[in-house]
Amino acid sequence: MKLGELAAFSSLEYSSRVEKTKAAMSKRGMDVLICSDPSNINFLTGYDGTSYYVHQMVLIELENSSPLWIGRKMDVPGARLTTYLSEDNIISYDEQYIDNRALHPMEFVSAIIRERDLAHSRIGVEKDCWQFTAGAAETLLLELPDVKFVDAFGLVNDIRLIKSENEIHYMRAAAEIADLAMDAGINKIEPGIRECDVAAAISYAQFCGTKDFFGDYPAASPQLPSGSATSAPHLTWSNRKYSSDSLAYIEISGCHKRYHAPLARSIYLGDVPNWLRDLVFAVHEGMDRALESACSGNSCEFVEKTWRSVISKTRYKKDSRIGYSVGIGYPPDWGERNASFKRGDKTILEKNMCFHMIIGIWTDELGYEVSETIRVTDKGPPEVLTKYPRELISK
Amino acid sequence: MKLGELAAFSSLEYSSRVEKTKAAMSKRGMDVLICSDPSNINFLTGYDGTSYYVHQMVLIELENSSPLWIGRKMDVPGARLTTYLSEDNIISYDEQYIDNRALHPMEFVSAIIRERDLAHSRIGVEKDCWQFTAGAAETLLLELPDVKFVDAFGLVNDIRLIKSENEIHYMRAAAEIADLAMDAGINKIEPGIRECDVAAAISYAQFCGTKDFFGDYPAASPQLPSGSATSAPHLTWSNRKYSSDSLAYIEISGCHKRYHAPLARSIYLGDVPNWLRDLVFAVHEGMDRALESACSGNSCEFVEKTWRSVISKTRYKKDSRIGYSVGIGYPPDWGERNASFKRGDKTILEKNMCFHMIIGIWTDELGYEVSETIRVTDKGPPEVLTKYPRELISK
Repeated sequence: MKLGELAAFSSLEYSSRVEKTKAAMSKRGMDVLICSDPSNINFLTGYDGTSYYVHQMVLIELENSSPLWIGRKMDVPGARLTTYLSEDNIISYDEQYIDNRALHPMEFVSAIIRERDLAHSRIGVEKDCWQFTAGAAETLLLELPDVKFVDAFGLVNDIRLIKSENEIHYMRAAAEIADLAMDAGINKIEPGIRECDVAAAISYAQFCGTKDFFGDYPAASPQLPSGSATSAPHLTWSNRKYSSDSLAYIEISGCHKRYHAPLARSIYLGDVPNWLRDLVFAVHEGMDRALESACSGNSCEFVEKTWRSVISKTRYKKDSRIGYSVGIGYPPDWGERNASFKRGDKTILEKNMCFHMIIGIWTDELGYEVSETIRVTDKGPPEVLTKYPRELISK
Repeated sequence: MKLGELAAFSSLEYSSRVEKTKAAMSKRGMDVLICSDPSNINFLTGYDGTSYYVHQMVLIELENSSPLWIGRKMDVPGARLTTYLSEDNIISYDEQYIDNRALHPMEFVSAIIRERDLAHSRIGVEKDCWQFTAGAAETLLLELPDVKFVDAFGLVNDIRLIKSENEIHYMRAAAEIADLAMDAGINKIEPGIRECDVAAAISYAQFCGTKDFFGDYPAASPQLPSGSATSAPHLTWSNRKYSSDSLAYIEISGCHKRYHAPLARSIYLGDVPNWLRDLVFAVHEGMDRALESACSGNSCEFVEKTWRSVISKTRYKKDSRIGYSVGIGYPPDWGERNASFKRGDKTILEKNMCFHMIIGIWTDELGYEVSETIRVTDKGPPEVLTKYPRELISK
């Protein structure tokens, strides 16, 4: 077992990410950052594992060159395998803290903070990150009355927005896997087949990956409603069977080393009826225009506005955003929670930002959805990483 | 589309769960419960979907017979399909609240609470539930200064501990799926095969399920480390290949309609070496004794103590618990976060409690793990729901 044997990047790349984080902390007057989001933890240290169902975090101290990982004792071997952190920087709490309503792991963390002479410092916490619970915050406040806690939600997420060439390499691998998984799903669908059997075919392709790139587990499971259930965007599947003359869609992600490339396609089982053609035209025309507008220098809200100028000429409506930044992800979400293609988002597009551009229209009766994962280029339209044919599939 | 078309249980079963919840609230002096845990939401209303990456919840009011679902507008069709709630009890916030650092969905929820004349009530919140973030709590406190917030973490989880006959039916289905998925994984493993290809075979079986029971997505992805990586309990897989004369294990769950039956087996590729036999004996002997002790009337800590009396006679050590209650689960965890087989847990076993009994020993060099999902019976030893042969597999 070698230090960082399973890390996804060089130790140098992690150091540069930590340096960027410290610069952002410094700008916002933080001495310490408690980073709880598993995607941010992975980004900063390489730490990987399904252990995010217990409290774990990395501490970034302005005065310390390397992060501290704090987690469950059982997960120390995982930290050794997936990060380059030295033994001194891997700190663990024992089993008495697990599922114990009378003892919170943040009591342990508070003691570490006191030991490190940080009990009077300014500490950033990721207030709306799913892994930083109300209970965690309450315990810290109680244990460390002289600490000034400030909201650092999004601080690391924002640094993840522009990808390195190595990250783009993984994004392309993820996109290749997404294409294969979509193909497996589309090939499997036909009237009489159960939804769960299509999910199985997709998942098989997602995990096998390619010869060169293993498939990692995506942050969310496939969504593949059919018939009336297409009206509900976040349903997964059941034993319902696909039926003739009905609409279905598949939204999935390819994943490699935690990097995600989501992809959605719709399929009509039978001859596409006339009533659907309007909707199909609006979605695809809107996608084409929005893609053309996703150039370096344009804002996120401009991309959404371009889409809206198409949809507003039709009888369809869509309130929700048409995309968001993607990269590293852990359940429950593959979105980075930083920039979105939505009204009011003034983020300026730069080279090597990656987005899931998703044009989905849901009515009370049905849903129609098409999406791509894109990389913003130096100039001109983006590179579409996912390559699966975009048109409505009819079979 | 019919109300509750995709709900897992009858409307009557959900009502009875809500009544039990109200009784517990009443006992603890709560007027309202804000329930944020997706497993608890599913338990109380049937709501299902992968939408738990945004803030959503159910409100249980002591004075109202039916829960309120509050979530994202886009997920209302999902709420209609998977619950029996009437239109009045499905309340949604719009897209401006999504990934907006300047506007929290709890501001919307606070307005609902004021409208319903509950701004001076006692409200329970699930403080250490992953979906109830520090940011959510802070917003509620700011918006509702006259509310008395009390910790309700575990209140609903504890009600989930004893399963109904209908729930046991799903648990058995999940166990059947776990057995099939384990078999698929074990059959696939051999020297030279990539871990990811084994994960693919497992996942395929997990999602297909059986002819009668579709496979749902488990709350955690398969764990299947091999070689030195077995020392790290929560690793998933990569493109590493299995090699001869090495140890590997598989920990997975079958899942049906969100009910989980986890299962773990270890496998040795080659002739089992003598140095491993001690460990194998300790684990299996310990499992047998612990199983015998998991009878109605015994405490959870007694089961752990029984195991410890076996392991303490060997040179191996294990600090971590040897099991926890299972049932409904969503990522990141299939555990119910109520009772565990661990020191100090005084929960008394009752008929139709279900546990994942997991005997795992991890050293710095390797890990060896065997587990079963069990149902506590009326008297005598438990029903072992998972049926896969328990011995160390050697091939």
